[in-house]
Amino acid sequence: MPFVTVQIAKGHSVDQKRELAKALTDTLVSTLGTKPEWVTIHIDEFERENWAVGGELHSDKPGKGGKHHT
Amino acid sequence: MPFVTVQIAKGHSVDQKRELAKALTDTLVSTLGTKPEWVTIHIDEFERENWAVGGELHSDKPGKGGKHHT
Amino acid sequence: MPFVTVQIAKGHSVDQKRELAKALTDTLVSTLGTKPEWVTIHIDEFERENWAVGGELHSDKPGKGGKHHT
Amino acid sequence: MPFVTVQIAKGHSVDQKRELAKALTDTLVSTLGTKPEWVTIHIDEFERENWAVGGELHSDKPGKGGKHHT
Amino acid sequence: MPFVTVQIAKGHSVDQKRELAKALTDTLVSTLGTKPEWVTIHIDEFERENWAVGGELHSDKPGKGGKHHT
Amino acid sequence: MPFVTVQIAKGHSVDQKRELAKALTDTLVSTLGTKPEWVTIHIDEFERENWAVGGELHSDKPGKGGKHHT
Repeated sequence: MPFVTVQIAKGHSVDQKRELAKALTDTLVSTLGTKPEWVTIHIDEFERENWAVGGELHSDKPGKGGKHHT
Repeated sequence: MPFVTVQIAKGHSVDQKRELAKALTDTLVSTLGTKPEWVTIHIDEFERENWAVGGELHSDKPGKGGKHHT
Repeated sequence: MPFVTVQIAKGHSVDQKRELAKALTDTLVSTLGTKPEWVTIHIDEFERENWAVGGELHSDKPGKGGKHHT
Repeated sequence: MPFVTVQIAKGHSVDQKRELAKALTDTLVSTLGTKPEWVTIHIDEFERENWAVGGELHSDKPGKGGKHHT
Repeated sequence: MPFVTVQIAKGHSVDQKRELAKALTDTLVSTLGTKPEWVTIHIDEFERENWAVGGELHSDKPGKGGKHHT
Repeated sequence: MPFVTVQIAKGHSVDQKRELAKALTDTLVSTLGTKPEWVTIHIDEFERENWAVGGELHSDKPGKGGKHHT
């Protein structure tokens, strides 16, 4: 009964989340042989001022506003 | 020093949270023999568009708006 | 679909875990009106050398070996 | 910078984990447009006696020993 | 590649978060010998009505509104 | 009441953990003005075959056996 938590930056549309949840579930089914109804996906969004790599807040990095920087 | 995280859908009142925190703490005290002041409860609420079972977002499921579908 | 994570020290028997999982599930059903089959409980055990309060490892505290100090 | 945690039962081989990590990363890249090197996957394995659905430990359920019941 | 999650009450400024992320990263570098760019910090803020110690919600405790009660 | 989870690879000594817990607690006290006894640190160790960056398991990367690659 896999439980998957995906931590990504805020700013994704419901369509993107729908596609993501479906694709991740399919991936678990195909790689682990589990059933889709046993898979739970939790999308846990964070604000960029709450995430840091190398000691620098994501919101302080130049050009980190787009969806490609999730 | 038990630390309990409860992930539930958004939409519960403060009264429900108060009752939940009290009841969970009592449960840990009675089953584990710990002291109430050693128990921390974290209620971690999620949006229904951020939770999926079977590859389908909770917000897309019909009739999943009520409190009984937490 | 509540998902509950319980972080406790290692050293509990399967009987204690069985009782804990049952009691926590009952508590969620009675306080939130959810159904038992929608409740998942994850018991996440930690070693005492991996847990610190006040900057001191739990394994370094005197008399912290018993089950009452979970 | 997506961070993905996958909670599954113990008992998967390194080959399965390798395939899972690769497939999940590819899924995130294709659905979110992120770069592979920004994706971290954490496989968090649990013992069946530490996981319960419906108030019943997974280790107590009949026929729940195989890899298809993860 | 340390990943650090800091759960604190809401109400901290971006300046405090910036200082916290920097200081935690420095601490990991100096104690573990890791490189700063390998360290990720996630600040996970909670509402006081979602956190309880001793079975009592933090928002119900007298005088728990200030920044010193994080 | 800050709760800090530190995810690092297995292989650190108790002395390193002791120093880490102490240093992280001091950092939270100095940056947030909290009291040491309100700070909990959880060190959550992972196996290198359970952690992947860029879709590659940490255990598959060349030269990733040392303590500097945590």
